[in-house]
Amino acid sequence: MTAPPFPSVSAFDVLNWLGLLAFAFAGALDGADEGLDVLGVAVLGVVTALGGGITRDLLVNRTPVALTATVDVLLVLAGVVAAVLLVGNGRELSTDSPAVQLPDAVGLAAFAATGAIVAWDSGLSAFGVLVCAMLTGTGGGAIRDLLVARTPGILVEDFYATCALAGATAFWALRTAGAPRPTGVAACVGVALALRVLAIRYDWHLPTVG
Amino acid sequence: MTAPPFPSVSAFDVLNWLGLLAFAFAGALDGADEGLDVLGVAVLGVVTALGGGITRDLLVNRTPVALTATVDVLLVLAGVVAAVLLVGNGRELSTDSPAVQLPDAVGLAAFAATGAIVAWDSGLSAFGVLVCAMLTGTGGGAIRDLLVARTPGILVEDFYATCALAGATAFWALRTAGAPRPTGVAACVGVALALRVLAIRYDWHLPTVG
Amino acid sequence: MTAPPFPSVSAFDVLNWLGLLAFAFAGALDGADEGLDVLGVAVLGVVTALGGGITRDLLVNRTPVALTATVDVLLVLAGVVAAVLLVGNGRELSTDSPAVQLPDAVGLAAFAATGAIVAWDSGLSAFGVLVCAMLTGTGGGAIRDLLVARTPGILVEDFYATCALAGATAFWALRTAGAPRPTGVAACVGVALALRVLAIRYDWHLPTVG
Repeated sequence: MTAPPFPSVSAFDVLNWLGLLAFAFAGALDGADEGLDVLGVAVLGVVTALGGGITRDLLVNRTPVALTATVDVLLVLAGVVAAVLLVGNGRELSTDSPAVQLPDAVGLAAFAATGAIVAWDSGLSAFGVLVCAMLTGTGGGAIRDLLVARTPGILVEDFYATCALAGATAFWALRTAGAPRPTGVAACVGVALALRVLAIRYDWHLPTVG
Repeated sequence: MTAPPFPSVSAFDVLNWLGLLAFAFAGALDGADEGLDVLGVAVLGVVTALGGGITRDLLVNRTPVALTATVDVLLVLAGVVAAVLLVGNGRELSTDSPAVQLPDAVGLAAFAATGAIVAWDSGLSAFGVLVCAMLTGTGGGAIRDLLVARTPGILVEDFYATCALAGATAFWALRTAGAPRPTGVAACVGVALALRVLAIRYDWHLPTVG
Repeated sequence: MTAPPFPSVSAFDVLNWLGLLAFAFAGALDGADEGLDVLGVAVLGVVTALGGGITRDLLVNRTPVALTATVDVLLVLAGVVAAVLLVGNGRELSTDSPAVQLPDAVGLAAFAATGAIVAWDSGLSAFGVLVCAMLTGTGGGAIRDLLVARTPGILVEDFYATCALAGATAFWALRTAGAPRPTGVAACVGVALALRVLAIRYDWHLPTVG
């Protein structure tokens, strides 16, 4: 619909591709961990990678980019294939290992930024920008968790969705204050990624209520 | 897209706000019951409150109201904060207590009415009106249940979605018979709310099959 | 939005109706198996039947056909009623019996074809055609599985989504090679249905990874 023009390669594209690759890899490894068959592993990788972006595009009422662009798909496939090759070669890769968690953190930060960008361009409210960034960053992982009948990690585990929210807040504040887009995007990615890496490194958790 | 104009405050607005407040409160209390962390509690409240309306707006192909309007968000936050304060003060509030079930019934009736209104304005069929009202009234709660990996209450527990369907049927019948909008809306809310309160009070259940 | 005109009865209509009827029947039987109440059984039948098509229509940004067309609804109801009558008469119908699995296979093939048709008409990429066909064919069943808190069968069980993908691949290849629509549609249905029936008959499974 109102898809902004992205001539040549934009920051949106680069972040989108990064996120797709990283989440496809992490999602497929998760599926292998769960003992799924080949198609299940591939589906989990694809769902983890595409779920966030499709949610984002549905929220702002446009046909999902992932279903019309072809380079997106190749990156998702590359992520899945990399995961399958690693597992097929007998590498034990728990989903808690840095080799999985770092790409996942990159995906979270990159997708949070694409969500914030699209929400901003669609004229959503501050809350809309936060929700869109959070759902874009965490939606794929949440759908993956639901598919394997787990309570989504974003609800119980850790300092995860918070990172996307903090990044989007930085983006919105800077943009509202008049900063140019690249500044807002860089701040969003930087804040989200730094918080997530620190949360993993120092095992940060939010307090529970009551 | 075809969002009808709501000058000043309409019945739709009032019902939407009521539903948001009530569901945010009930959803957050549920999250506290499940032992989630602060963000999890807030997410559950937000999801319960916004899930139905976002589903409604996606079904009729418009950008979710909740992501562009700011008053909606403040009400959701108020509901979540109220729930957190209650729990933080050591009040034991089981999700079966009237203090939770009554607001939930109000939310169900109010959201069923907003779903019926939007479906009618979008030219959906009688069935479309019923589905849209039911999903708007129960969608947030169903997504909440899925997030905490429970079978949605609407499927197993009780006389719940039925109330939304009955209210929407009243709305559709009256509007089709030529009654003005306020009459249809009042009937929808009245029927759904009365049925739900009676179902809770007298422990009504639908029969099981086979 | 860009809904193609379907004057009189098109292949899309016939396949859509077939799928609705078959999935409503299979979904309702599944709900009875799970011991749900009458509304739960009906909801499971309706969700299984409508879930795929609604997902399809959301992906290509149009208001779901099922919410505006009335004949669709009558077929879904017919499927649910047939299932309830069978169960009510004391027939033991496990979801593994041919009386359930054959209609389900027909629904899978028919819906995969409607997904491929709509995706093609909306100008999606090859990947978009595959995803749309797969989600249309399997989406209703996956939502049903989530509602009763099971890991979706498409991820763990069997040679299922693969059949939809193979059918959509045949459709896309033939259409891209210039074959007329009826040829592509027939190939899609034929390939998906044949693979699924063979998979059931000979208990085919995909290999697991690692």
